[in-house]
Amino acid sequence: MAESVERLLQRVEELEQELARERSRRIAGDGHCGRTRIQKMSDEVVDSNPYSRLMALKRMGVVSDYEKIRTYAVAIVGVGGVGSVTAEMLTRCGIGKLLLFDYDKVELANMNRLFFQPYQAGMSKVQAAEHTLRSINPDVLFEVHNYNITTVEHFEHFMNRISNGGLEEGQPVDLVLSCVDNFEARMAINTCAPPLVVASNIDEKTLKREGVCAASLPTTMGVVAGILVQNVLKFLLKFGTVSFYLGYNAMQDFFPTMFMKPNPQCDDKNCRKQQEEYKKRAPAQPTQETAPQEEEEVVHEDNEWGIELVSEVSEEELKNSSGPVPTLPEGITVAYTVPKKREDSVSEVTVEDSGESLEDLMARMKKM
Amino acid sequence: MAESVERLLQRVEELEQELARERSRRIAGDGHCGRTRIQKMSDEVVDSNPYSRLMALKRMGVVSDYEKIRTYAVAIVGVGGVGSVTAEMLTRCGIGKLLLFDYDKVELANMNRLFFQPYQAGMSKVQAAEHTLRSINPDVLFEVHNYNITTVEHFEHFMNRISNGGLEEGQPVDLVLSCVDNFEARMAINTCAPPLVVASNIDEKTLKREGVCAASLPTTMGVVAGILVQNVLKFLLKFGTVSFYLGYNAMQDFFPTMFMKPNPQCDDKNCRKQQEEYKKRAPAQPTQETAPQEEEEVVHEDNEWGIELVSEVSEEELKNSSGPVPTLPEGITVAYTVPKKREDSVSEVTVEDSGESLEDLMARMKKM
Repeated sequence: MAESVERLLQRVEELEQELARERSRRIAGDGHCGRTRIQKMSDEVVDSNPYSRLMALKRMGVVSDYEKIRTYAVAIVGVGGVGSVTAEMLTRCGIGKLLLFDYDKVELANMNRLFFQPYQAGMSKVQAAEHTLRSINPDVLFEVHNYNITTVEHFEHFMNRISNGGLEEGQPVDLVLSCVDNFEARMAINTCAPPLVVASNIDEKTLKREGVCAASLPTTMGVVAGILVQNVLKFLLKFGTVSFYLGYNAMQDFFPTMFMKPNPQCDDKNCRKQQEEYKKRAPAQPTQETAPQEEEEVVHEDNEWGIELVSEVSEEELKNSSGPVPTLPEGITVAYTVPKKREDSVSEVTVEDSGESLEDLMARMKKM
Repeated sequence: MAESVERLLQRVEELEQELARERSRRIAGDGHCGRTRIQKMSDEVVDSNPYSRLMALKRMGVVSDYEKIRTYAVAIVGVGGVGSVTAEMLTRCGIGKLLLFDYDKVELANMNRLFFQPYQAGMSKVQAAEHTLRSINPDVLFEVHNYNITTVEHFEHFMNRISNGGLEEGQPVDLVLSCVDNFEARMAINTCAPPLVVASNIDEKTLKREGVCAASLPTTMGVVAGILVQNVLKFLLKFGTVSFYLGYNAMQDFFPTMFMKPNPQCDDKNCRKQQEEYKKRAPAQPTQETAPQEEEEVVHEDNEWGIELVSEVSEEELKNSSGPVPTLPEGITVAYTVPKKREDSVSEVTVEDSGESLEDLMARMKKM
């Protein structure tokens, strides 16, 4: 009798432990019941093959060597509305390795975008993302860093991981994708390729204030992530035409393209060095197909970085394709309708930190 | 002693039941730890408010009455690569009610697209989707139907739900979104608005054969779903310009727009009736802003449905915006580069059921 009580007590303990494990698995989103790892991508068309639809790109002749995707490592900086979907798409495509950088926590306020779920509120974005992504595709290697890349100490570590965190340790990553929501981080990621709409001299901290937030939709962020990853795939797997710069005006469904040229007199000598190296590599890139020839219309020539943005569509075409500018409320600008106008405004934006609201700031910027 | 054994046995049973419940919750993706229902959308900017970023569209003046989204019911036919993401976006936006129609099961072979996860393999797509969507946003009402709408019996039920399954039972749904992968279902959804690329007289069963599948990527489907839902939001919440027809050429990042006109001589009298009703309602629609005026270039005038497709870009503009046609392998066509050419090919496509491969069929269609 004593023995059977002993056994029962042991069983209760086992069950309690198993229950605790189950609960933590469910909360962490650990897809224990998912699939096991696959050593070699197969093109067999069976329901159980997660790669059949991707490998069919070979059979259809679009991509010559789809399996090569497993040899690439991509770093994603910012795992928010765009970065998380970007990570999920690359994970489902079977990328070799993903490095994720973010210092934020998941909040219920993020549920207006794809990917994160309410039960993950409070978890760090990179950890929550890693759990979900692993259960989606256990073949991908993940390396996550829960810190802000713009601090000196973390920037050094970030640079080190970009240079050494490739598929094989010691090798650089193949691409760095900027999916951040502020200019400071954007500049930290690339001191030589500034964003098209530049808010120089604005203290961004005035934009992120208590009780104020910018509106966002799962649609715009899904479209941007989709276009980004489509171009990543075209670039890595060498098919189609890679866009240098592609905008999305969601109000009018207008998608302007730009060709971006580096500044040969860039202050950063590393940048100049990389420009030289790129020139040597360039002929092998599929992107060359659409590089515009001569007589390019140069926009933004006078910006402080000396970057030239070459519009691929004429003013007339822009007008025709975009239709009339919609009547927008004060404070809202359409980023991609009349790029010519920005020629004067870039590098002249000066808004004082006067405690204005986000709307006031945007209205001011619009008037300039 | 006997009593304590009794108690222990009872405890073991309780624990076993709880463990089974936990397991099924985790497997079903039931976000038990998610959030509770919210009675009224708030615009308060706090981390715990899942609607703050959406309600900010009001504060920024883009949408005048965002809460109105809760009054709409949308039916989604096909819950695959495009439909599932479409459903997730509308769920996160806080739509009033979603009706999902699909008869397929989740397979590991679907993991190349967003939304479904490996642990859901074997579940019906509509049930798996409902579980996930409920845990993302418990405020949305869901009605799911696990059947094929193209059979006579189910088509009747489908039509009945479209007419009566609105937010209030007995009212029609506000929009029907076609996210299906075959022409039969597309024609069943709308006998008067055929897809732009029409494969008349092809027995589609020859396309879906053992050992053959069409390639697909999470990127293209994410972009298409994003553009679709963006236009749904613009249409329902009356902002921006709604696109009648928007294409996506992923190889070249080219997004042509078309204006679609109904056929006033349509054989379907319901269609003609709805055309009349639409004409009366039309002035109130935001879509009118960009309806092209007179002298429209009419494409596809001779197709069997009498539908007119009016290109909003000239041949010259198309050429300039799309750049050179990439060198594509045999069997692959770019759907949106030279629409003029399709004028001759529509309604003349005749491919015999000769057991050809998908590639052969596509190559043949290309040559026509």
